[in-house]
Amino acid sequence: MNEQNAVIDRFLSDHLDDYIQETMRLCAQPSVSASGQGVRQCSQLVAEMLSRRGLEVQSFETPGHPIIVARAGGASPRRLLFYNHYDVQPAEPLELWTSPPFEPEIRDGKVYARGVADDKGEFVARLAALDAVRAAHGGELPCGVTFVVEGEEEVSSPHIAPFVLEHLDLLAADGSLWEGGGVDPDDRPGQVLGFRGIIACELFVETMSRDAHSGGAHILPSAAWRLLRALAGLKDENERILIPGFYDRVLPPSQADLDLIAQQPDFEDHYRKTFGIRQFVSNRSGQELLTSVFEPTCNIQGITTGWQGPGTKTIVPAQASAKLDFRLVPDQNPEEILELLRAHLDAQGFDDVRIKAHGMMWPFKASEDDPLVRLTHSTAEEVYGMAPKPPVPLGGGSSPAYAFSGPLGNIPVVHAGVGYPHANGHAPDENIRIADFLNGARHIARLLNGFADL
Amino acid sequence: MNEQNAVIDRFLSDHLDDYIQETMRLCAQPSVSASGQGVRQCSQLVAEMLSRRGLEVQSFETPGHPIIVARAGGASPRRLLFYNHYDVQPAEPLELWTSPPFEPEIRDGKVYARGVADDKGEFVARLAALDAVRAAHGGELPCGVTFVVEGEEEVSSPHIAPFVLEHLDLLAADGSLWEGGGVDPDDRPGQVLGFRGIIACELFVETMSRDAHSGGAHILPSAAWRLLRALAGLKDENERILIPGFYDRVLPPSQADLDLIAQQPDFEDHYRKTFGIRQFVSNRSGQELLTSVFEPTCNIQGITTGWQGPGTKTIVPAQASAKLDFRLVPDQNPEEILELLRAHLDAQGFDDVRIKAHGMMWPFKASEDDPLVRLTHSTAEEVYGMAPKPPVPLGGGSSPAYAFSGPLGNIPVVHAGVGYPHANGHAPDENIRIADFLNGARHIARLLNGFADL
Repeated sequence: MNEQNAVIDRFLSDHLDDYIQETMRLCAQPSVSASGQGVRQCSQLVAEMLSRRGLEVQSFETPGHPIIVARAGGASPRRLLFYNHYDVQPAEPLELWTSPPFEPEIRDGKVYARGVADDKGEFVARLAALDAVRAAHGGELPCGVTFVVEGEEEVSSPHIAPFVLEHLDLLAADGSLWEGGGVDPDDRPGQVLGFRGIIACELFVETMSRDAHSGGAHILPSAAWRLLRALAGLKDENERILIPGFYDRVLPPSQADLDLIAQQPDFEDHYRKTFGIRQFVSNRSGQELLTSVFEPTCNIQGITTGWQGPGTKTIVPAQASAKLDFRLVPDQNPEEILELLRAHLDAQGFDDVRIKAHGMMWPFKASEDDPLVRLTHSTAEEVYGMAPKPPVPLGGGSSPAYAFSGPLGNIPVVHAGVGYPHANGHAPDENIRIADFLNGARHIARLLNGFADL
Repeated sequence: MNEQNAVIDRFLSDHLDDYIQETMRLCAQPSVSASGQGVRQCSQLVAEMLSRRGLEVQSFETPGHPIIVARAGGASPRRLLFYNHYDVQPAEPLELWTSPPFEPEIRDGKVYARGVADDKGEFVARLAALDAVRAAHGGELPCGVTFVVEGEEEVSSPHIAPFVLEHLDLLAADGSLWEGGGVDPDDRPGQVLGFRGIIACELFVETMSRDAHSGGAHILPSAAWRLLRALAGLKDENERILIPGFYDRVLPPSQADLDLIAQQPDFEDHYRKTFGIRQFVSNRSGQELLTSVFEPTCNIQGITTGWQGPGTKTIVPAQASAKLDFRLVPDQNPEEILELLRAHLDAQGFDDVRIKAHGMMWPFKASEDDPLVRLTHSTAEEVYGMAPKPPVPLGGGSSPAYAFSGPLGNIPVVHAGVGYPHANGHAPDENIRIADFLNGARHIARLLNGFADL
């Protein structure tokens, strides 16, 4: 280990408790972008945390929640962009949390809170890395840094893409560290080279002006049945999406992708245990669980119709709605798919089914040969004391990284962070391990350190 | 009009305001059987109202809500049984009410409140009729009366049938006046000779032990999709229910039924306006809207799964449930149909879909030639000043009358009451017209008066 890394590691070990406290303060501030709960207060807290470190902070209003941009110069003209988000998923169902989601608690070396893994703990780990690198460089940074911290990632980042296009000069950078790093079930770090796109949308049906007594169900049109039939026409029993043209731009995995996938650890048992799964989709197993990420999906996030209270209510529902998300693979285009969905519903006679788009992201995929990808790989090996796993060619989730990489000159996008497989992201008892926080901060500090000389 | 009827009518006119006030007091007491809200307090209020009139009142506990039985003797040994219920449907959606559902309000000659039409106003109209007949008979009743007032009609009366079987002596009667009478869109009174049966049940699916991130939708089994597929297998596009054996006991309408239906007024425009209907089920219209009541239904009361808050939540739901009701026609047997539903789901590979039965009722149908049916018809003609409409052979709703008529010796069951087509039963702004309340009480008093001599 070189001298700078020794200083960095000592600094982080000495101040670990402070950073965990800072993480817990940030998590104690709710910031549910779907409902708006606490979001603005959280954006101010984030701005203060960055400003306190001497970065020049700007808060940009959007039609939704504010985007925070914070910049600092460094010894090298090269600049690394950090993307994070300060918003979190809704905490429901509350009864499944061991401790309240917005009252962070440490148990067994883990911090429990909504958002601690996705993505507040990671954000604080980066601030810690920044502080540590400065300590190793006599207070200076080796390269410039730009933080972009948005408040709408959990609602599909509807305003980040136009924001980037409108602020290309402000956001100019030579590489980017994205959110979402960490270790696998064997505690091995790794890279994800790309992510699927997404359309988050909602379908609405209204068949009557009010609910009616179900004694008239032989004649009164049911919104529940109509929605159900519209949904049933979207996907067949074999998970094949029935929208004409949906698969036209789908690229199958390349041989390089398949080679990388073949080197991935098996997570079948992990998923079976974590989610109590008896049978995967289409009875998939083994390698197919990994390769099927190259297949786009049509997921139902939720359905709302009729009586949902206790017991029974003899009504024919007049209204029904379903929240959907489609995960898209390279080179599908979400704007085009949304038009195909509309055309399909119309063609099936469902022109009364209204579609509201909540947000969309494009799929994207980077090269495993990029120097920043390689730096991330080699520094991970030093920090974690083992060879990182082979890069994952495509992650199942979606990332607004697509909106930065292309417009900023096809800059590389890498991941390093604090996650682990039992973090329960988007679910009750979300948590991080404190040991992962420390390693994540050490790794990020090394990226900052090495980035100037790439 | 004979002298007794003149006394009755004068009494009811003189005391109309008092009875409307009594109705409003009863409606101000919530009694939502589905949630339990206020139900016990309402049962006590009903017991007091009956006791105050000198009836011998008993309150019977059930596994659900209490059943009130009140009896009084009369000059004749013949006895008329009145069935009512003191429970009401949930009041939601509250924002669609003009005035709060449990704060009764008089507007434009109508009383607005949850339950005022179904069935509290009708119950008070019967008490008024009882008082009026006594006034015309020097304080005596011409025949015995038995009130049965239950608290679970709106949750399919799960305990009334066994209760009747266990209390045949207490409930012995020569005829029965059921709930649910009133006038049609032309203000004409009428009879309904039978009702459909019902199974109210709920389907539950659990595919995982917790919700998961929808980035895994290509492999993680969705409870929403699984429920949707199970439901889609219950009914085809033409409303034909796909459960094998479901139609085996279905009796088609007789020629007498069709003759009665042919004499019914057309309600197509009324329904189109009231419910803003563009297209009826299976594009039915005209006479078919009436005859199709002889077809059983499979209705979705509500579906609950996944995220139902504002915006979007990128999850694969682990749990999903649907509340259903099947309306059954003579001679379908709900216990048998429930078994067929289970067998069908199993045969379709949905043995993991759990069924919970919330309640069931049998279909039944009386003869139009019965003397009590004829008395109801002739007294209605005098009260309303017009020929009643021809009896409806089968109502679309369900009635626990099935549980009384057979066990008590196939006693006739008739209807007389305070309803009208814009009463909004089970819906926001439920109401009765005060004029209908008066006519209903006059009609019921004449039935009491004439029943001794049938």
